[in-house]
Amino acid sequence: MSELRSIKWQNEKIILIDQTLLPHREEWREIELVPELGEAIKTLAVRGAPALGVAGALGLRLVSRNFKGQDPLKLKADLEENAARLNATRPTAVNLAWALKRVMEQVRLAPDRLDAVQKAVWEVSEEILRSEEEYCRQIAAYGSPLIPRGARVITHCNTGALATGGIGTALGVVKTAWEQHRDLFVWVDETRPLLQGARLTAWELEREKIPYKIISDNMAGFVLKQGMADLAIVGADRITRNGDTANKIGTYSLAVLARYHKIPFYVAAPSSTVDLSLKTGEEIPIEERKREEVLGYRDCLWAPREALVYNPAFDVTPGKLISGIITEKGVAYPPYRKNLAALLGSR
Amino acid sequence: MSELRSIKWQNEKIILIDQTLLPHREEWREIELVPELGEAIKTLAVRGAPALGVAGALGLRLVSRNFKGQDPLKLKADLEENAARLNATRPTAVNLAWALKRVMEQVRLAPDRLDAVQKAVWEVSEEILRSEEEYCRQIAAYGSPLIPRGARVITHCNTGALATGGIGTALGVVKTAWEQHRDLFVWVDETRPLLQGARLTAWELEREKIPYKIISDNMAGFVLKQGMADLAIVGADRITRNGDTANKIGTYSLAVLARYHKIPFYVAAPSSTVDLSLKTGEEIPIEERKREEVLGYRDCLWAPREALVYNPAFDVTPGKLISGIITEKGVAYPPYRKNLAALLGSR
Repeated sequence: MSELRSIKWQNEKIILIDQTLLPHREEWREIELVPELGEAIKTLAVRGAPALGVAGALGLRLVSRNFKGQDPLKLKADLEENAARLNATRPTAVNLAWALKRVMEQVRLAPDRLDAVQKAVWEVSEEILRSEEEYCRQIAAYGSPLIPRGARVITHCNTGALATGGIGTALGVVKTAWEQHRDLFVWVDETRPLLQGARLTAWELEREKIPYKIISDNMAGFVLKQGMADLAIVGADRITRNGDTANKIGTYSLAVLARYHKIPFYVAAPSSTVDLSLKTGEEIPIEERKREEVLGYRDCLWAPREALVYNPAFDVTPGKLISGIITEKGVAYPPYRKNLAALLGSR
Repeated sequence: MSELRSIKWQNEKIILIDQTLLPHREEWREIELVPELGEAIKTLAVRGAPALGVAGALGLRLVSRNFKGQDPLKLKADLEENAARLNATRPTAVNLAWALKRVMEQVRLAPDRLDAVQKAVWEVSEEILRSEEEYCRQIAAYGSPLIPRGARVITHCNTGALATGGIGTALGVVKTAWEQHRDLFVWVDETRPLLQGARLTAWELEREKIPYKIISDNMAGFVLKQGMADLAIVGADRITRNGDTANKIGTYSLAVLARYHKIPFYVAAPSSTVDLSLKTGEEIPIEERKREEVLGYRDCLWAPREALVYNPAFDVTPGKLISGIITEKGVAYPPYRKNLAALLGSR
């Protein structure tokens, strides 16, 4: 497996692949200043909740590295200011806020010495990078045995290296199974409206030379009806105590289709995605996005300009439709109300 | 209801709305020559199986009207030649072939007199126009009582005036129900890959001022899960003796979702769509279309250029998922094997 990482720290700079240009141009951007990074986040050059966490941590590392003064309190103030600025770029991205908070907590605790503050920033951001890598690897280790030789897998959205700080979640499982037996095939839902499947998942699979075909989302049912897929695997944005899973819009339709055709439907996500404080998916707020996304794609407008749309960015799949939840701590099986909390320890 | 007809005969010419420019420009084209008509069919300026039947019939009417000679045998030969030419424009469009054949049968039977040949062309084409109008009206009369006051209807693809020679099939039912009680709402599946829902159905509903919202096809499940739709209604390209229905790709996914959420799923189509000689949907061949349609839309390419796709134009929904089949002869209910043939008479 090629070691694609969508965002990394190299030669004292952030290096990230510009996802707005994919799949047609593979351009790496070097980022040395926080405003540039903020712009990259806002324009979705870097995207995917876990990847945004990495971006936030590395953003604060830039501030620390670029600091020219001698006053540790001034550095702390700079870090606070830039953390707030980065946090405002994508207010709904939980991982971004979480990573910034983690770094800033240690910054605030650090003694008022320049080296101590800089060390805190370095160490926490390093820890975030390492753990993002590591949980992907663990999820893949637990998940890949679920993808047998010859399996035809259907997936939705992008859950690979582009979305995370490692090899990916659901797509990381697929890539690892491919590495093990080189005998699988992937159906890629194009994933309207933002087409992360057709653009990004297809690009990653192409790069790894894993056989795949893109389908319109509405073809999934017909693919399953003809017995052309053996299992479905997707990522997650938020999972509640009973296994209800919020993920990219269209996940729920796919889960119903998988159940109707009696094929397993797996969710792969780090345990940080699980929110045991929420009892059911009813408690997850669903973000609605702007109408332009449904009226066309980027500069292509195909619907009537004045048309109204419904554009929920996520949907919630009930735990009862999910065959297993793959985390870095192992695979939880139903009943989730009992088994998920048990797997993740007494939180 | 405004009397939109996508193709008509006016001032000795064919007038048709250029569907390639919809929904952003409403341009009517006057067509006086068969090659222009052939071009309009090939470029999908006119589309929809029943509308293509009308186009074929009116194409032969143009030949007859434009004929300058005195030799009835020469006119017959011209008609044969142009019928063959038109037939080749969309070889898979059954209605086009059927309409051309119907006209030519009478042409061949006509006495070898100029007025007799011209009369045959006029009368058969007039009969085709009238019957296309009429079956739409009848389907709507039988179907509209199934759409109660306040109903929230979900539909797929375009089945309105743009696709037919009348007010439409499934969309004709919706429009007629709207005319009756002015109290319904339509969820419009955008219908990837060719986006007939977002482009054409939205345009027709906008024009009739019927409330609607466009959704990506993959949002249908979430709409149904939230109890936001009361029934589904779609058209059909071919129906077999047992009610199995070939229709635009995505219809099957919607039917499974409707069943899972326990809302009715109706099919509306003229009886000519029913092929009692086929026992089940297994016997319907499914056309696969070119990969470019899935890789993007028109000039917008978003997937990797080299990506493979699966692009079936239709899928088959089993009769057991269909609550009722609405035809111009009435509504057939399950079991279709018995009731469909009975409704349509002893064919």
